[in-house]
Amino acid sequence: MSNAIWVPIGVGLLAILFTVFLANYVLRKDTGTPEMQKVSNAIFKGAMAFLNRQYRTIAILSIFAAIVVAIVLYFLSAGNNAVKFDLAWRTAIAFLIGALCSGISGYTGMYVAVKSNIRTASAATRSLGEALTVALRGGAVSGFLVVTLSLLGVSLIFLIYSIGNSIDKVPSLIVGFGFGASFVALFAQLGGGIYTKAADVGADLVGKVEANIPEDDPRNPAVIADLVGDNVGDCAGRGADLFESTTAENIGAMILGISLYLVTKNPGWILFPLVVGSFGLIASAIGLLWIRPSVVTEPDKAAGRDPGEIAMQQLTIGYYITCILSVIGVFIGSYLMLGNSLQAHTLPAWVWFGLAGTVGILLSIAFVYITQYYTSGTWRPVREIADASITGPATTIISGVSVGLECTALPVLAICVALGISYTLGSQVIIPVTISNSVINVGGVFGTAVATVGMLMSCAYVLAMDSFGPITDNAGGITEMSGQAESVRDITDALDSVGNTTKALTKGYGIGSAALAAFLLFSAYLDVLYTYRHSPSAYQVNLSNIPVFIAALIGLTLIFFFSSLAIRAVGKAATNMIEEVRRQFRENPKIMAERVEDRVDPDYARCVDISTRGALRAMVLPGVVAVLTPILIGVILGPTAVAGLLMVGTMGGVVMALFLNNGGGAWDNAKKYIEAGYLRINNKTGAVVDRLASGSDITVLGKKSEAHKASVVGDTVGDPFKDTAGPSLHVLIKLLSTTTLVLAPLYIFLHP
Amino acid sequence: MSNAIWVPIGVGLLAILFTVFLANYVLRKDTGTPEMQKVSNAIFKGAMAFLNRQYRTIAILSIFAAIVVAIVLYFLSAGNNAVKFDLAWRTAIAFLIGALCSGISGYTGMYVAVKSNIRTASAATRSLGEALTVALRGGAVSGFLVVTLSLLGVSLIFLIYSIGNSIDKVPSLIVGFGFGASFVALFAQLGGGIYTKAADVGADLVGKVEANIPEDDPRNPAVIADLVGDNVGDCAGRGADLFESTTAENIGAMILGISLYLVTKNPGWILFPLVVGSFGLIASAIGLLWIRPSVVTEPDKAAGRDPGEIAMQQLTIGYYITCILSVIGVFIGSYLMLGNSLQAHTLPAWVWFGLAGTVGILLSIAFVYITQYYTSGTWRPVREIADASITGPATTIISGVSVGLECTALPVLAICVALGISYTLGSQVIIPVTISNSVINVGGVFGTAVATVGMLMSCAYVLAMDSFGPITDNAGGITEMSGQAESVRDITDALDSVGNTTKALTKGYGIGSAALAAFLLFSAYLDVLYTYRHSPSAYQVNLSNIPVFIAALIGLTLIFFFSSLAIRAVGKAATNMIEEVRRQFRENPKIMAERVEDRVDPDYARCVDISTRGALRAMVLPGVVAVLTPILIGVILGPTAVAGLLMVGTMGGVVMALFLNNGGGAWDNAKKYIEAGYLRINNKTGAVVDRLASGSDITVLGKKSEAHKASVVGDTVGDPFKDTAGPSLHVLIKLLSTTTLVLAPLYIFLHP
Repeated sequence: MSNAIWVPIGVGLLAILFTVFLANYVLRKDTGTPEMQKVSNAIFKGAMAFLNRQYRTIAILSIFAAIVVAIVLYFLSAGNNAVKFDLAWRTAIAFLIGALCSGISGYTGMYVAVKSNIRTASAATRSLGEALTVALRGGAVSGFLVVTLSLLGVSLIFLIYSIGNSIDKVPSLIVGFGFGASFVALFAQLGGGIYTKAADVGADLVGKVEANIPEDDPRNPAVIADLVGDNVGDCAGRGADLFESTTAENIGAMILGISLYLVTKNPGWILFPLVVGSFGLIASAIGLLWIRPSVVTEPDKAAGRDPGEIAMQQLTIGYYITCILSVIGVFIGSYLMLGNSLQAHTLPAWVWFGLAGTVGILLSIAFVYITQYYTSGTWRPVREIADASITGPATTIISGVSVGLECTALPVLAICVALGISYTLGSQVIIPVTISNSVINVGGVFGTAVATVGMLMSCAYVLAMDSFGPITDNAGGITEMSGQAESVRDITDALDSVGNTTKALTKGYGIGSAALAAFLLFSAYLDVLYTYRHSPSAYQVNLSNIPVFIAALIGLTLIFFFSSLAIRAVGKAATNMIEEVRRQFRENPKIMAERVEDRVDPDYARCVDISTRGALRAMVLPGVVAVLTPILIGVILGPTAVAGLLMVGTMGGVVMALFLNNGGGAWDNAKKYIEAGYLRINNKTGAVVDRLASGSDITVLGKKSEAHKASVVGDTVGDPFKDTAGPSLHVLIKLLSTTTLVLAPLYIFLHP
Repeated sequence: MSNAIWVPIGVGLLAILFTVFLANYVLRKDTGTPEMQKVSNAIFKGAMAFLNRQYRTIAILSIFAAIVVAIVLYFLSAGNNAVKFDLAWRTAIAFLIGALCSGISGYTGMYVAVKSNIRTASAATRSLGEALTVALRGGAVSGFLVVTLSLLGVSLIFLIYSIGNSIDKVPSLIVGFGFGASFVALFAQLGGGIYTKAADVGADLVGKVEANIPEDDPRNPAVIADLVGDNVGDCAGRGADLFESTTAENIGAMILGISLYLVTKNPGWILFPLVVGSFGLIASAIGLLWIRPSVVTEPDKAAGRDPGEIAMQQLTIGYYITCILSVIGVFIGSYLMLGNSLQAHTLPAWVWFGLAGTVGILLSIAFVYITQYYTSGTWRPVREIADASITGPATTIISGVSVGLECTALPVLAICVALGISYTLGSQVIIPVTISNSVINVGGVFGTAVATVGMLMSCAYVLAMDSFGPITDNAGGITEMSGQAESVRDITDALDSVGNTTKALTKGYGIGSAALAAFLLFSAYLDVLYTYRHSPSAYQVNLSNIPVFIAALIGLTLIFFFSSLAIRAVGKAATNMIEEVRRQFRENPKIMAERVEDRVDPDYARCVDISTRGALRAMVLPGVVAVLTPILIGVILGPTAVAGLLMVGTMGGVVMALFLNNGGGAWDNAKKYIEAGYLRINNKTGAVVDRLASGSDITVLGKKSEAHKASVVGDTVGDPFKDTAGPSLHVLIKLLSTTTLVLAPLYIFLHP
């Protein structure tokens, strides 16, 4: 056992302290006016009620799954009883711990996020700088907790399971941890995603479109459900997603390191991802603390410049600091852990792997830029949709679908280039021919693993930016609903625009890292197959083999089918919500009374309840389909066929998620583009003119215009795409792999 | 050389005579009133103008492509100069002949279809039975011509190229024919698809939604373009698509038969698809002639029954006759061609293959039923969309996307089951171990080939039903625009509803057969690779190999990207059309004058011209991307990687086409469901009630309701999905394979 395992454990414990420091900073802040508290408490109550019920359901499902897995592995795998029993209980326990850690990080992160929103709103009454810091640190609690718990969980369980086991056997015993994490993540993301969009669609369609009241207006019965949704969907959902990515990446890379450990006897190959992951945590913390709230320009002193943009620059600088430190970290990690335990061409092995890690870090930056191109109003795609909205909702949708489908190309090319380069870099090491599975290029595959590790080093920072989104969104809602002054709203508006940007960018990061992590996982799966079969054929996922082809086709179809279920779930829950909101407006006209003093509050709780029940009921079917399909194929068609399902399913998941995420994001921003008054036409020709053109013959098609209404339809359609189905696919592709990894002994037992 | 080659040639020549008989029957019919002729002539002029310009562009592209292919094969392939020269010129000539045949069948079929519409309209003034016969026979000209020219083309070129060549070398020399066919088909389908939907979207959005005039109203400037579009899109496009499928199936199956010919020395294995294809042609002709117009019930005597449904029954009976005869034909064909030239388990080999062919025929029936389930108003999916339209366009779109994504599952399962079973059936033959490429299961793969042959036996009949659609649609338009009596319109309405059903069903058939044909083609490609490499590794398309994985991922992304380009092209062309129609209404108020006698005709020609130019310009980019991507990957990553691109690209194409076709079809029928007055709600609860419920508390949400408007948005969004991008994908997946087959020598030369 190498002492290096103490690095992630030590850093992990420090990171817990850091999280406590951040949480403490946030919670000590004041909680604003009673009006603010009223709104905030309603959000808190709704969010916690949902989370409690959701995690109770997930806990039941998890315990059931753990028992089934243990029974299956005990009765339906090869080996003597002692070996089978050992495998069964260790996998089940690891599964439950993984599930628990995922649950804790989601739950706690959300708790702090919900507590942060009112404090951000209150800080906004004083300054943008302070509000920014509160929101960012509140979000960082979630971000750091997720990454830390994943790292600590994997490290500790590795440490414990390696007692009495040879170190190379341990990674396969802890894949259950990854399965547990992805199992919980799938339901958390699905449930949260359905919740948030059912509420959002309901609130928008009746409130904004039919009743013509602004967003976050307290007269809208669904408004609290909508604000709750931002937390449970974006915050808890993405947390669970990236918890899974880091876990999958760590376990996958460890499994891939085993064969290199076996040749070199250097345990560094196995522990590499954990150590470099800890360096990433440090880099993220430094990047976060680098941000200077004092540099931010207050809206009242902005003098025409966009205070949101200036604040965003700060976050971008922090991100680059994190990336630069990550590059240094991955080189140091490679040097310390891998050193020269293998020969390589031209340069030492650790340099090649350091470069491979750098490729992963560059990929994360590329993803951020590509996402920005496709979803920000500054570029062609969003403008194209905005222009199409002039001819009505149908052309808005057609144009958005076209943009969404188009935007799969660049990210996929980026992934292909990153995989190709990191593979080539890794291939520069010279693997002694004695290595057991020389049928594949072990160095090359490990190169792709290092790239994945590199990409995920900035995970904590990215997650902090991501949770920042719902916090600022909620702060804006609280400010609006509690009737604060214009100047306060200027500050929360600036924050909100920053939050919208970060949310879109982190979704790109989420799918990119999910793709790489999944690639690791199925490489790891093939390694596991090899340990059973000891034949080069274990590495052949040959599509011209009919069962593999069929499984692959089913894998791809599963992606479409799963997306359908997720989208339909939102549609159904939203329909219930729409009917409820309409009912309240109809049966209780006092909600919309002319004079403010005559008004009564709508029944927020009922809407919250409809979202909660709808989401919990609807998340089960897609979740179960996702878990059972690969298992069925593995049982019927065997372990090689299921590898085909994994790989093509992963490709399909990546491409489909890009379509859904970016298409949805582009519609969203096309609407914002129009609301900002950038869509302008020439009165005579009807042609679209420059977004800043002015003059007597220019008409601005802004809020309330027909074009705006069409863009709201686009935005609404995009909602379940980008916030339910898309992010759930991130999780699904990892779940496919972890399910298969855990149940590999079953498939091999049935198809020896 | 076997005498069997004369069977397809003889049957093909007879089929040509049959086509002439059909065309003659139609053209001898009377051409109605002068008002009808005015409309019909405008359609004829527009369609021919487009077709002439389109085929001129395609001809230029084809000649260019043929030259490039010849040059590439001559300079960049292995072997001595004589061999290379032979390959180069034969491929280029085959390419041009394939392109020409595809062009002739598309052009002539369309010509007769456009001539049939007025004759159908005129016959409708007399009886439904006569109108049905005219429309069906007019459509059958196109259907039989397509299949016959494909069969004759392949047979004749096979006959000619086999002079001086050993028979097993010939199939690879004629793959150029398939490439030529798919090349033309891609541009024909894309151009036609863009044309028809740009016109349709333009006509609907301004005419129906904004100006509130009915469909096919002569005041709509885009109405002629819309009617022209039905012909050039549905008729010429689908003809080119299925020309390609039959060609691809014939050539692919012939290549797969080579290795069995080499063991058995029975040329029947190679000629099997051509002979069975001729039997299919005979079966289709009998099925078509079986239909009894006299059995049809005239609308005025229908007594409450739906005359369209009764007419549809006749077509269904004809289809089943064709299927039953096809089953008999495939058994006879197997017995005559394959006989007992190979031993098999339990039963004679020909029985096993006869059963495999039957599986294909059953698959075609399954596809028809599944398509019906997802796109007909009788079942859940369409009703779900209709219900969602009550809450507006956004939920209509969300619900339709969800249905579209869902409906990929059953057809894919059907394809998987058919592939699995036919493979197993084929595996029952005992292949002597001496066969060169025993690394794969040659019998099993040939079994899938026979299933494909079986599925495509009814092609001519299906195509006749398909072309029936635009003819009846146009007849309806002519009747409406020339102001015929109500009773005539009842007849054309009944015909139109039949046409809509057949159009949807044949699209399902199109994608199913495209999937199987593509599967054949890449199996054939691997066989070709083997002839160059003589190593079992030629058959391994191993996804765990990084270049293969990358190529596969790019193949899948190509599908998304291509769909994006196709959809965007429609969006752009439609925007121009919308602007033009609005301009005409604005600048020429007399078009919409109150009194009929004050009205002037709008400028139809300008709209026709906008569609024509838009379609021709827009079809080039997606077409070029589709052709160049596999070539680039083959050149850069090599012949095995490109096989990965083919296979995963094909899977993606199939699933995406199902999504686009059925999603679009479901929206279309949800709109029709509402127009038929089936969407009814309870006034008090707002809940949807049974489609035939009535009473004082029931409101029918029919035409002009908000729900109807929402459903029109859904229909419009679905238009480019189901009529442009979806069908183009059918062609694309075959094009990917034929390009690769033709350029295999290049890839092998660059990556020896």
